[in-house]
Amino acid sequence: MKKIVTLGEIMLRLSPPGNQRFFQTTSLNVEFGGSEANVGAALAYWGMDVAHVTAFPDHELGRSAAGKLRNVGIDTRFVQFSPGRMGIYFLEHGAMQRSSQIIYDRAGSSFAQLDPKVLNWEEILDGADWFHWSGITPALSQNCADITLQALEVAAKKGVKVSGDLNYRSNLWQYGKSPDEIMPRLMELTHVMIAGSRDFKQCLGEDFKSFAEVRSMAFERFKRLEYIVKTDRISHSSSSNTLSAALYAKKKTFSSRAYELTHIVDRVGTGDAFAGGLIYGLLEMKPKEAIEFAMAAGAMKHSVPGDVLICSLQEVKELADGEATGKIKR
Amino acid sequence: MKKIVTLGEIMLRLSPPGNQRFFQTTSLNVEFGGSEANVGAALAYWGMDVAHVTAFPDHELGRSAAGKLRNVGIDTRFVQFSPGRMGIYFLEHGAMQRSSQIIYDRAGSSFAQLDPKVLNWEEILDGADWFHWSGITPALSQNCADITLQALEVAAKKGVKVSGDLNYRSNLWQYGKSPDEIMPRLMELTHVMIAGSRDFKQCLGEDFKSFAEVRSMAFERFKRLEYIVKTDRISHSSSSNTLSAALYAKKKTFSSRAYELTHIVDRVGTGDAFAGGLIYGLLEMKPKEAIEFAMAAGAMKHSVPGDVLICSLQEVKELADGEATGKIKR
Amino acid sequence: MKKIVTLGEIMLRLSPPGNQRFFQTTSLNVEFGGSEANVGAALAYWGMDVAHVTAFPDHELGRSAAGKLRNVGIDTRFVQFSPGRMGIYFLEHGAMQRSSQIIYDRAGSSFAQLDPKVLNWEEILDGADWFHWSGITPALSQNCADITLQALEVAAKKGVKVSGDLNYRSNLWQYGKSPDEIMPRLMELTHVMIAGSRDFKQCLGEDFKSFAEVRSMAFERFKRLEYIVKTDRISHSSSSNTLSAALYAKKKTFSSRAYELTHIVDRVGTGDAFAGGLIYGLLEMKPKEAIEFAMAAGAMKHSVPGDVLICSLQEVKELADGEATGKIKR
Amino acid sequence: MKKIVTLGEIMLRLSPPGNQRFFQTTSLNVEFGGSEANVGAALAYWGMDVAHVTAFPDHELGRSAAGKLRNVGIDTRFVQFSPGRMGIYFLEHGAMQRSSQIIYDRAGSSFAQLDPKVLNWEEILDGADWFHWSGITPALSQNCADITLQALEVAAKKGVKVSGDLNYRSNLWQYGKSPDEIMPRLMELTHVMIAGSRDFKQCLGEDFKSFAEVRSMAFERFKRLEYIVKTDRISHSSSSNTLSAALYAKKKTFSSRAYELTHIVDRVGTGDAFAGGLIYGLLEMKPKEAIEFAMAAGAMKHSVPGDVLICSLQEVKELADGEATGKIKR
Amino acid sequence: MKKIVTLGEIMLRLSPPGNQRFFQTTSLNVEFGGSEANVGAALAYWGMDVAHVTAFPDHELGRSAAGKLRNVGIDTRFVQFSPGRMGIYFLEHGAMQRSSQIIYDRAGSSFAQLDPKVLNWEEILDGADWFHWSGITPALSQNCADITLQALEVAAKKGVKVSGDLNYRSNLWQYGKSPDEIMPRLMELTHVMIAGSRDFKQCLGEDFKSFAEVRSMAFERFKRLEYIVKTDRISHSSSSNTLSAALYAKKKTFSSRAYELTHIVDRVGTGDAFAGGLIYGLLEMKPKEAIEFAMAAGAMKHSVPGDVLICSLQEVKELADGEATGKIKR
Amino acid sequence: MKKIVTLGEIMLRLSPPGNQRFFQTTSLNVEFGGSEANVGAALAYWGMDVAHVTAFPDHELGRSAAGKLRNVGIDTRFVQFSPGRMGIYFLEHGAMQRSSQIIYDRAGSSFAQLDPKVLNWEEILDGADWFHWSGITPALSQNCADITLQALEVAAKKGVKVSGDLNYRSNLWQYGKSPDEIMPRLMELTHVMIAGSRDFKQCLGEDFKSFAEVRSMAFERFKRLEYIVKTDRISHSSSSNTLSAALYAKKKTFSSRAYELTHIVDRVGTGDAFAGGLIYGLLEMKPKEAIEFAMAAGAMKHSVPGDVLICSLQEVKELADGEATGKIKR
Repeated sequence: MKKIVTLGEIMLRLSPPGNQRFFQTTSLNVEFGGSEANVGAALAYWGMDVAHVTAFPDHELGRSAAGKLRNVGIDTRFVQFSPGRMGIYFLEHGAMQRSSQIIYDRAGSSFAQLDPKVLNWEEILDGADWFHWSGITPALSQNCADITLQALEVAAKKGVKVSGDLNYRSNLWQYGKSPDEIMPRLMELTHVMIAGSRDFKQCLGEDFKSFAEVRSMAFERFKRLEYIVKTDRISHSSSSNTLSAALYAKKKTFSSRAYELTHIVDRVGTGDAFAGGLIYGLLEMKPKEAIEFAMAAGAMKHSVPGDVLICSLQEVKELADGEATGKIKR
Repeated sequence: MKKIVTLGEIMLRLSPPGNQRFFQTTSLNVEFGGSEANVGAALAYWGMDVAHVTAFPDHELGRSAAGKLRNVGIDTRFVQFSPGRMGIYFLEHGAMQRSSQIIYDRAGSSFAQLDPKVLNWEEILDGADWFHWSGITPALSQNCADITLQALEVAAKKGVKVSGDLNYRSNLWQYGKSPDEIMPRLMELTHVMIAGSRDFKQCLGEDFKSFAEVRSMAFERFKRLEYIVKTDRISHSSSSNTLSAALYAKKKTFSSRAYELTHIVDRVGTGDAFAGGLIYGLLEMKPKEAIEFAMAAGAMKHSVPGDVLICSLQEVKELADGEATGKIKR
Repeated sequence: MKKIVTLGEIMLRLSPPGNQRFFQTTSLNVEFGGSEANVGAALAYWGMDVAHVTAFPDHELGRSAAGKLRNVGIDTRFVQFSPGRMGIYFLEHGAMQRSSQIIYDRAGSSFAQLDPKVLNWEEILDGADWFHWSGITPALSQNCADITLQALEVAAKKGVKVSGDLNYRSNLWQYGKSPDEIMPRLMELTHVMIAGSRDFKQCLGEDFKSFAEVRSMAFERFKRLEYIVKTDRISHSSSSNTLSAALYAKKKTFSSRAYELTHIVDRVGTGDAFAGGLIYGLLEMKPKEAIEFAMAAGAMKHSVPGDVLICSLQEVKELADGEATGKIKR
Repeated sequence: MKKIVTLGEIMLRLSPPGNQRFFQTTSLNVEFGGSEANVGAALAYWGMDVAHVTAFPDHELGRSAAGKLRNVGIDTRFVQFSPGRMGIYFLEHGAMQRSSQIIYDRAGSSFAQLDPKVLNWEEILDGADWFHWSGITPALSQNCADITLQALEVAAKKGVKVSGDLNYRSNLWQYGKSPDEIMPRLMELTHVMIAGSRDFKQCLGEDFKSFAEVRSMAFERFKRLEYIVKTDRISHSSSSNTLSAALYAKKKTFSSRAYELTHIVDRVGTGDAFAGGLIYGLLEMKPKEAIEFAMAAGAMKHSVPGDVLICSLQEVKELADGEATGKIKR
Repeated sequence: MKKIVTLGEIMLRLSPPGNQRFFQTTSLNVEFGGSEANVGAALAYWGMDVAHVTAFPDHELGRSAAGKLRNVGIDTRFVQFSPGRMGIYFLEHGAMQRSSQIIYDRAGSSFAQLDPKVLNWEEILDGADWFHWSGITPALSQNCADITLQALEVAAKKGVKVSGDLNYRSNLWQYGKSPDEIMPRLMELTHVMIAGSRDFKQCLGEDFKSFAEVRSMAFERFKRLEYIVKTDRISHSSSSNTLSAALYAKKKTFSSRAYELTHIVDRVGTGDAFAGGLIYGLLEMKPKEAIEFAMAAGAMKHSVPGDVLICSLQEVKELADGEATGKIKR
Repeated sequence: MKKIVTLGEIMLRLSPPGNQRFFQTTSLNVEFGGSEANVGAALAYWGMDVAHVTAFPDHELGRSAAGKLRNVGIDTRFVQFSPGRMGIYFLEHGAMQRSSQIIYDRAGSSFAQLDPKVLNWEEILDGADWFHWSGITPALSQNCADITLQALEVAAKKGVKVSGDLNYRSNLWQYGKSPDEIMPRLMELTHVMIAGSRDFKQCLGEDFKSFAEVRSMAFERFKRLEYIVKTDRISHSSSSNTLSAALYAKKKTFSSRAYELTHIVDRVGTGDAFAGGLIYGLLEMKPKEAIEFAMAAGAMKHSVPGDVLICSLQEVKELADGEATGKIKR
């Protein structure tokens, strides 16, 4: 059983039931989610030994969030209970031609304010096979950027494999730094980058003519880089998307099949499920199988409510193998 | 901010949750709806100054209905609390090849019994830019037909622009008059008619060979008429329709794009959302933009539960402009 | 009004609401279902005089199950309250590429343990026009196999028409007998068999090269056999299937149209609705109409939550006649 | 098993969940209830052979109501599907110092318009041991008054025992007759009257100084009268009542114990449960036991949601015997 | 119809359904509430002309909050949509010996950051009969303290009567001022103070030996003061309280009856309902009646879910008159 | 942080929402519970290091049950996934004079069939401070009796303190042994027995005249015995109980205060919460404090839905200290 460590903020996710709009609702469904924890949750559900590092306020909502992580099998030993509030995001599910909408309310969270000194990365990463971070964390606060860097430096020292979902978000980076002041050093310490051209452009503060140019630049510049991973999504409507992905090694490209995703149940967390599938795949499979497994995990997530992929290894494998036909399993 | 007045009955709408059938359900979702108030609600939600004229019984269900109108921003100053019951309609949502079903239970409502003398249309229409009525109102009772005529005559005197959704319903007109005894005079006082060939035929008690014939007859006969507006719906199943619309001036035709509406959430009130969009469009845009905006509003309503279009101006405009792709908005 | 008797186990059906997974749910929707009772329920809802024979534990869950049968119009005079537990099946609704899953928990049920001596088939089948059984019953226990045989022998004596849904289930037949020790005798007493090649193969313990071979063998071997009925389902995903059926007389074949079933609401009980439609059709219509009616009933069931087809005769007939377009019925 | 026939209107009961007010609610819980059917339902649940006579509109809400009667075991053979609407009552549950509120919306129901000629009382009362009616029925319409009288005359002829719950309601009797024009004849044909002084006063149009005077008058005037039954309720608040009852024979009085009813779950239908208990008691027990059983049934109903007493014979008997202590039954 | 203006923050109120704890819940009921708006809502529901002054973020949650104010009849003309977040409070309902718990998450709200310059109090208070504020507002931020003072100075100039609920909250006052730097000036401009000894002590930064001393000091020091109003609550458990109140003029004391409040439905907003009742009473009644009406309003609120008293004038008056016995109203 | 090990079966708990009866419900709330795991859950929620030993079927319901244990903080390292079904209990909540009812459906569970050889008690109890068992486990099957004995013998060898809740249940012990063949040896290895006279009588197969006699016998016979603990419950109704407890050392008795428990929310698991409190108390406090803490934990559980006490240490301590008055905590 491989040991994986993930780092990142977890928010309370509040969403109106069914297709209701914010204006209409009289109740909100409660989930907890955060990009990196979602990745860890998928892996833990498949039986991996996953520890997540984050911080919650020391009250019942924070304790409840920690309980939800344990529920899916995540080790919460390194979760901090510290000053600050619980970050929240309000999610309205779209339908048909109407988009899903997210209202973020995460400023001042315990995680954003977490003191880097309280985390002992030597201990946390002890025995770890893989560490996963995302570009959301260094975008939250200087503390969070510092924490990410510390983690990556210890990971490098210990020889832990590192994946990073660059995930540039324009409405973050409010604390006085721009991405290109922070991200390049973090990318240097990363082996697998999940990112498209726009992410590279924003993180490096440079323009590129094509993904081909990005690719050659990246493998040139980032010595540890083994793979760039990119998904391609065509959004026909909130209810129907086409999705595929590819894994780019320096010289070789491994493409997944494309999925027609109609009747979408929950669009959120699908990239995280993909990332979880990718880590599982790269740890346990060959590259071609890995990208198919990752894409199947990402596709499957569209059918599961909540932030987290609750699907067995067998279900994902069957879909990756093209054997899932929607017949009832008795 | 334009001032709009709408007139019409509002019913308690009771529908089994999800896809349940009447026979199965143990609870009913509560909404309030009525064709003309739905039109007003869409306009009020977009920031227009809308007053609705109707009547409710003087008990808590009536007060609750008035509260729902205020909730979306409608001015209820002219709502009457008067003898009679609360009209009800029971709505079972269809799915796939199974049709939606409506059981009307509206006889004896406060609105149908409303005394025309209690309404002071000089005051109600003071400063109004637009008045909207539908063919449902004169079909309910002689009182309601009289009220509609009074309103239209005052509107004509004051130079208020008038739209009418002819909306012939064969299960109404139970009070001893046929449509052709009542509707022609109301149509004479109307500038924008939402109607298809069948509506014209029933309202006028005449046969027409084609919509072309209807069109030339109508612009000939009704001197105030500026536009006929017609939607074309192809119903593949309860879950999937194709929908488009056109705005016919005397000489010119403005056609909207066609929408493929799969994964329909709520079929009811889509024509009212269209009419609301039309009024907004004709007040604020050129004809071609107006019909696109109206059709986008109508299309969007299929994704929103309830009778009323709860969608921002920006959402409708993006769809009208072809920019809505169902991507998550963060 | 025709009189129909059905025989079979009824289980408590527990399913997470909406698209939730077993792992996520905090409540379970309660239905009761069983293949043969589902057949009877559809027929009773259409006004047929249906009695169902089964057994429940003598506690409130058993009484509740009996109440549910009465609710749809089934006569429960012959329902036994006897030792054993309430069989349960847990159903997780699939969506998109994710399959529906059923966890059976039916061992030790009152029905499986029912003493054949308590049932007086002379009385039960008195005046009956039709008797329906399925291959699930003889697969549960020796008692159940004995009960089925007794019923069929009395039916034969009384000249009651018999349909059997062979429905081979590999996870049953745990009591020491194989299907080919039991089923052939039951098939000899049956006039209408709902079955595909695989069912014949398993029930007879023989291999066949094609359905054509099965068909000629069957009409040769089973002297009472009038029709074999077979459905063809192509499962694109949990949300979308293509479905058609055919009725095979010795010499003639009657094929139904094919239905595109997208936006599936509830996949369970669709074969039972089809069987109910078939019995109705064969009692009241010509063969071609019968198979169209049966297929329409089966198709319609995909839009109705629960195990049972709650649809009026008129709704099914309209679909069978190709007149159902999903327009709102007011 | 005794055979009992009940007669009366059944309404759709719509109530906001929990303690919500009409103004607040977004859904309504669905039950069906009517005084006399509630009586029949309690008796059917205890295993009596009960047929209820009523009328419903011929649409899905009417069919659903009939299904609910069958669900609890009532024979619906004599239920008519005839023109008119489904009567409705809206019930808001009180709490603490706040009263429960009922908004009736029953005018124009199928039952109120039922043609007396369609009911064949000779057939309906064939073999019956008991017939139960209430003062609500003759208060609805002349047709309903006529139907009640016809039923009572046939019952008298056949020697069927009759109970009547006089139940004077001031907001009924809208059809041009006053109670004293109708009720006296019905009372003459009744053996057991559930009524207090106010009911006698209103039904007879006479004043009485005391219940003692009522009692001596009644046994004098109504020759068939065997018992007057009266409950005494002290309402401390919506959540807490004290309740007792007495059975008055001409010379003898049988009093029940008093119940302290705190934490009331559902106040509606408690008198009907009492009446059901009374009929059961008078059919199966001695007077003293009967009144204790009736009172226990009435008390128990306060703990059961809905209009109908869903309690086993054993539960009621244990309470009547003073053995119910609220310990968990395993 | 009297015109009343209220000022204060409104928060999104999120509470687990029923008796669930934060740790357990999978959904949160949505209400909106704030002390002063709750006061205004009660008055608006009784038909008063109430305008509330507050600020919301310019997104759908803010618009929804404004819609809820309109729903109960509050005029939202002066509501600002301005930068900042939506304040939230999480409420867990207690039961029995377990306390209700509130987690506040209100820092950084639009209201706390509202620029005093955007409010034109001359216009807002034009024609007003009464202005109501609470000690929560000046405790939120310097801006809010400034806004309160501006409002009170204009009210004084215009001769508008002013009530203030001093309501000292120790977990507020985080912006660098202590209550005694701010509150005394606000109290000078207030005619009716709802406050106990502890509130006076904290607001003035002085110690008092008894309420008698507080009272004589207050009438001495605050020249506009007409009444001090004080409630006395004995909390037996979360489910059961005893509550009474008194109105202290300079020389005279008017005491209400005491209420035994068992079976409490919602404890929150009861003081606000009391304050609403007090304003209504002082505007429309004599002092003794006013304090009884206020106390009845406060008592009634314990039976209504949500922050707001949804009770008709008649219901409150009946309770104040001692006529509410919890009998069903039909 | 003390380390505690608990052993026992966990069942799926299915209960109708609110006050609904089994006959009425259309959904069942899902919890997981089992006496000993409930004890462990309370301790884990207070921050103790708790491992629970049990077995689940290897399907999604089993995995969900394990997830629920982790959710409250229980270590599931020793949970087995093995053949058998998921035990179920159906719980109907009583109200007022109506009792709660439990229908057990636990025969054939994975735990009852668990092979004693798969558990390595040397490893499980390594470093443990306390082991807790109950009389339910040896009553399920010979395997379970053997497992309990093995655990106790290893605990004795390792000097782990042992508590046992004797908890005689007459509807268990179906596997051919009587309690007095099994329990005495288990009791010999136990330091703290939670039991009343009836439990001792049934477990030992002997009669005792009084609890005094039981007490002196027990301390005489069971050499390891340190405390007998006994609760006294007076059940006034399902909604109202009086509860107290006492801790009996050989010579000394420590009695708790008595609690009036009105408005009971959930009666199940209250003894387990008490046992959890007792273990915590005996590990961390003096005997008098321990029994008060235990009783407070037991009392508090009546206010929390589900099987498990979700209450913080502070909440229980405040109640034990008499400081819980039901005031809102902000």
